[in-house]
Amino acid sequence: MIKNKIVNAAILIIGNEILSGRTQDTNTATIALWLNSIGVKVKEVRVIPDIEKVIIDTVNELRKINDYVFTTGGIGPTHDDITAESISKAFNLKYGIHNKAFRILEAYYKPGEFNKGRQKMVWMPENANLILNPTSGAPGFNVENVFCLPGVPSILKSMLGGLKDKITGGEPILSHTISLRTVESEIAKSLTNVQKNNKDVEIGSYPFFQAGKLGVSIVIRSEVRSKIEKCSGQILDFVNEKKIEVVDR
Amino acid sequence: MIKNKIVNAAILIIGNEILSGRTQDTNTATIALWLNSIGVKVKEVRVIPDIEKVIIDTVNELRKINDYVFTTGGIGPTHDDITAESISKAFNLKYGIHNKAFRILEAYYKPGEFNKGRQKMVWMPENANLILNPTSGAPGFNVENVFCLPGVPSILKSMLGGLKDKITGGEPILSHTISLRTVESEIAKSLTNVQKNNKDVEIGSYPFFQAGKLGVSIVIRSEVRSKIEKCSGQILDFVNEKKIEVVDR
Repeated sequence: MIKNKIVNAAILIIGNEILSGRTQDTNTATIALWLNSIGVKVKEVRVIPDIEKVIIDTVNELRKINDYVFTTGGIGPTHDDITAESISKAFNLKYGIHNKAFRILEAYYKPGEFNKGRQKMVWMPENANLILNPTSGAPGFNVENVFCLPGVPSILKSMLGGLKDKITGGEPILSHTISLRTVESEIAKSLTNVQKNNKDVEIGSYPFFQAGKLGVSIVIRSEVRSKIEKCSGQILDFVNEKKIEVVDR
Repeated sequence: MIKNKIVNAAILIIGNEILSGRTQDTNTATIALWLNSIGVKVKEVRVIPDIEKVIIDTVNELRKINDYVFTTGGIGPTHDDITAESISKAFNLKYGIHNKAFRILEAYYKPGEFNKGRQKMVWMPENANLILNPTSGAPGFNVENVFCLPGVPSILKSMLGGLKDKITGGEPILSHTISLRTVESEIAKSLTNVQKNNKDVEIGSYPFFQAGKLGVSIVIRSEVRSKIEKCSGQILDFVNEKKIEVVDR
């Protein structure tokens, strides 16, 4: 593993139900937090509809400019599940029954239950690598750097553990949060100075409301712990000087 | 208003905190549901980091291929709030103090409280149109078809009402949901047939878990109520035939 190399990923959420606002996406945060922990930084997220051409074009764009692409949604048994076929077309691969996936689902279901509807879930790009699904049997898959996961959050979560060996991250991205009983405008100038003195550290400022009171969380992110500590020290210096209260959150 | 014209929008979520997974985005669903109600369809969502070049390039790409673009985040007083300056650059407009916004915030704060930090929030693209903020004073703005809103969900929500007159939608997008006590594979084939018979209606199938039981919600979406009713009738036909229970959700 090359130390400190930044490894990037894009997340591609496929599904009309997210675009219509009917369903609240939570998979982005789940995948992003997990990727951070293994040293992969999410550079971009896109949400797109269940339209074949859009899926193909977006996958082909994102896979060339990111180390990894993670898609969610569209690998179930119904007519609107078109991710596997679209990925086949994006890679110019044959779309057909994946023998290993077939055997997994055949063993998973009771005799007679592995019907035509369910068999759609083993149609995949030729020679795709399977991503095992400990929750509901039907595997996800990857072709090269594109990893296709289901849209149901609980199932997706259960599949991430099995992915770890397939992803090579850089240094894990560390973060430290300092929450203050203040408003952003009070600390904006001082915080700008700290950012100027620590250009390679990511400093975010996020207002919050908690128990009827305003506050600001400052989030410091870097792959290098000592850089976070230096930055944190400079922030606490101006916090003490301004007599701002540090709060737990 | 041209009837049945499809009016499209993109949502652009600006913020490292969403990409890192630290913050769960909810603004996408809020904006999408509101846009649906006024006849605007969200075609695409992107989440991007607080990096000027990325914001400029993405805004310039999206504003040309969508009727409307809505950005969230990055219009507060701190160093990581760079949306207003980036939008100025995207449109080649001067970035400076917006007089009307200045007067609004000067009146909003108590004497002496409208400090340098807060004054950053009135720096905008020249001649931007303001979007009033009934919650916390600081206005959003739009330049042509790009509407810039804050990232804090409660503040964003309170500003949408005031936007209605600035957006011309098509026919509102209607939806009807039928929830069934079944699994997707049982209805996949029948549902595919209904979709084939109703090509211009969007039919989505979404598994759910409720009170320990599996189910599937079928969501039918169209601008034309009669098309939804026709589709719904065909779905209930096969549901009755298969003796599947319809459930409330």
